[in-house]
Amino acid sequence: MPTTSTLSARQDVGLPARLARSAATGGTGCRMSLTDFTGWLTHRTTVNRFRVERIPFADMDAWSFHPETGNLVHDTGRFFSVEGLHVTVGEGPFPEWQQPIINQPEIGILGILAKEFDGVLHFLMQAKMEPGNTNLVQLSPTVQATRSNYTKAHKGADVKYLQYFTGAADATVLVDVLQSEHGAWFYRKFNRNVVVETTQDVAVDDDFCWLTLGQIGELLRRDDVVNMDSRTVLACLPVPFEEPGALHSDAELLSWYAAERSRHSVDVRRIPLAGVTGWRRGTDSMDHDLGWYFRVVAVRVQASNREVGAWTQPLFEPRDSGVIAFLTRKIGGVPHLLAHARVEAGFIDSIELAPTVQYTPRHYAHLTGDARPPFLDMVLAARPDRIRYEAVHSEEGGRFLNAQARYLIVEADETEAPDEPPPGYRWLTAGQLNTLLRYGRYVNVQARTLMALLNSHAAEL
Amino acid sequence: MPTTSTLSARQDVGLPARLARSAATGGTGCRMSLTDFTGWLTHRTTVNRFRVERIPFADMDAWSFHPETGNLVHDTGRFFSVEGLHVTVGEGPFPEWQQPIINQPEIGILGILAKEFDGVLHFLMQAKMEPGNTNLVQLSPTVQATRSNYTKAHKGADVKYLQYFTGAADATVLVDVLQSEHGAWFYRKFNRNVVVETTQDVAVDDDFCWLTLGQIGELLRRDDVVNMDSRTVLACLPVPFEEPGALHSDAELLSWYAAERSRHSVDVRRIPLAGVTGWRRGTDSMDHDLGWYFRVVAVRVQASNREVGAWTQPLFEPRDSGVIAFLTRKIGGVPHLLAHARVEAGFIDSIELAPTVQYTPRHYAHLTGDARPPFLDMVLAARPDRIRYEAVHSEEGGRFLNAQARYLIVEADETEAPDEPPPGYRWLTAGQLNTLLRYGRYVNVQARTLMALLNSHAAEL
Repeated sequence: MPTTSTLSARQDVGLPARLARSAATGGTGCRMSLTDFTGWLTHRTTVNRFRVERIPFADMDAWSFHPETGNLVHDTGRFFSVEGLHVTVGEGPFPEWQQPIINQPEIGILGILAKEFDGVLHFLMQAKMEPGNTNLVQLSPTVQATRSNYTKAHKGADVKYLQYFTGAADATVLVDVLQSEHGAWFYRKFNRNVVVETTQDVAVDDDFCWLTLGQIGELLRRDDVVNMDSRTVLACLPVPFEEPGALHSDAELLSWYAAERSRHSVDVRRIPLAGVTGWRRGTDSMDHDLGWYFRVVAVRVQASNREVGAWTQPLFEPRDSGVIAFLTRKIGGVPHLLAHARVEAGFIDSIELAPTVQYTPRHYAHLTGDARPPFLDMVLAARPDRIRYEAVHSEEGGRFLNAQARYLIVEADETEAPDEPPPGYRWLTAGQLNTLLRYGRYVNVQARTLMALLNSHAAEL
Repeated sequence: MPTTSTLSARQDVGLPARLARSAATGGTGCRMSLTDFTGWLTHRTTVNRFRVERIPFADMDAWSFHPETGNLVHDTGRFFSVEGLHVTVGEGPFPEWQQPIINQPEIGILGILAKEFDGVLHFLMQAKMEPGNTNLVQLSPTVQATRSNYTKAHKGADVKYLQYFTGAADATVLVDVLQSEHGAWFYRKFNRNVVVETTQDVAVDDDFCWLTLGQIGELLRRDDVVNMDSRTVLACLPVPFEEPGALHSDAELLSWYAAERSRHSVDVRRIPLAGVTGWRRGTDSMDHDLGWYFRVVAVRVQASNREVGAWTQPLFEPRDSGVIAFLTRKIGGVPHLLAHARVEAGFIDSIELAPTVQYTPRHYAHLTGDARPPFLDMVLAARPDRIRYEAVHSEEGGRFLNAQARYLIVEADETEAPDEPPPGYRWLTAGQLNTLLRYGRYVNVQARTLMALLNSHAAEL
């Protein structure tokens, strides 16, 4: 007679409540108080020696511009390359353009190890230096590794705690989903966003500490502490949102998404970097003719605690900082967020759901009236009492230099942001976005930062 | 005080039971019995005049080989084109190759209109001629339209019932999801798979009839009656599967999928059709040097009941028919299906979940021992009492000529197909596959045909 002893439940029904408990546990936590954390992070920054200096392209080791294509490539052909992209979106203020783009086909692991202490889930976070971070050291996931990292393409030391994410050590998967990264700078880049839980004893290395979700939430209220990789992983956790309903059913939302995808005809072609028009390559940087967008630069990095002690690499350096915001409104008593079905050149399938506003204001300063991006001016002029959350965060410090954006959640009223918003926009609940995050490729990395705030109680709607 | 009057439930909790009731209603149905249906389909085939003849490429109207690229294109630049593809998968018996491929960036609508009669959901199906079908007329969705169709690129008549799928007529979305099509023949092709329900009176045109899900299931047991577009849409319906658990939790399955995606490095580059090596273009066809795979051919089509009465077009004509099968086993008393994380050149993101076996046996006839594709020989040699389902179905008759495959569901035992199958394979329940189908881009079109059988009770596990 068949038995069900070999079966698992499809869903871990206890997990949402355990995540909620961890999010509700802030302050002193169980393993390290936030007061101690601040000292610890400063200590980790000073005990290790870090140095990042700009260098001419010609001084890079093992990186060079390919003689034919002009692509900026590593001698091994691995890691990533800077290539050209020709983009035709056919609408809006910028219907067609060319640009440099980072091509990194390998899928990496952004992994956080979780473990219960005193009945509360804690997450093993790492004080990690990345050359592009303004303050160099930020809080990162337990493991942040490209496939080149963990297959030893760079001949470095072992990646710590990697065994929990490769099946080599005993751990239960809480979430593991492929998510996109910045579509304006990366060509179809994905990482696995993973959280696994262990019940084993874990030896905690000097650069690591256990924090609750609530403690991480408190740190997310500070500028430039929690790095992008941590934010995107935390966004994918199946935390519970108590919502009696939503303006649109899930079926309607998915239908709207499919219709939005259908109405865009985005044509993206990889071209040689040498053939990119509107950009000039100098000895120290590659720049847009107007000085807009970003520069491609090179740095030399020294770090006493990384798998490889010293290296050189290219980075993208944005020229201006961005403003990224969700508008929020209670509809029928339930908080909703206004999502934008946004085209980005590097997305694998043209669109993903983005925050209401995601712009570098300088690029739109010349536009007036209806040509202004919807809702941008409302966010820029928001009264302090309408701002539910505001902090500056850095984007991926391993690829982007001083790439900072101001993240906001701004309250709107029905006049400013009606139930039926302009084409391309739709009201969703946090719970609906959370469900979409389980399946990947629906919600962009900027929206995921804002979802991480809600998951960790850094912001409340 | 806020109210919840404007809110919808996120899920239509009554829908699965209504779909189950429709699937349980076969035979006479409510609107047309299957006996009447057979006569009706024959009548529709004879009352309309259809004619498909092979012609030389040079006799096509408005289609030609581009003088530089050799791509086979329409004068308007719309519809689709036949281009070249260079594929590097780096493993298996065919690690690298070039081939012609259909590029059709427009996203079409495959839509079925549903309505309750006598408390049972019925689906408005169409007797539709497609030039590639062996028997020309098969049962298709209510609407099967590319964007060129419904934006009138071909200056044809209106697409019937389209208004229910564009928001112009009142209807509730039951499902609407972007799904891939044949990755071996299409470059990143997607269609919206849509079912909407109306409560309005619907005037039924001559070529249309209302059938229950159970009736369609009975028709799916016949060869070549229900077309591919119908099968893929029906696969996406959220029918209920009673399963107390599964061998792997949903989180584990998604993690396995992410790991499978990560371990494949598939490089796909579009190249000019003129530059494709291993293929020769003649006056009437473009053929693989070994006579394998498929030919590109041209046809002239005449139809008295289509939006456009006569036209010419290219088709892909497979040289051999395929064998497509899920192995099934009860694990812990719950039926499971053995899915394969399969690489296809035209997939947007390298892999999708496919049936256990999906091969053209002739291409593997030269291989022996471990080089044979896993499970293929087991399916080819399956005893009749192990075969739960077997029928021949056609693939997309608008693009493929006489493209038939034998679809099977074959029972396996633990020795033949253990709980821990080879790398790249995983046991899932039908309910787990059904959930993945809600989000798109996870389950390939061949697996969707097999899921349509389960949804409609054409096959039982």
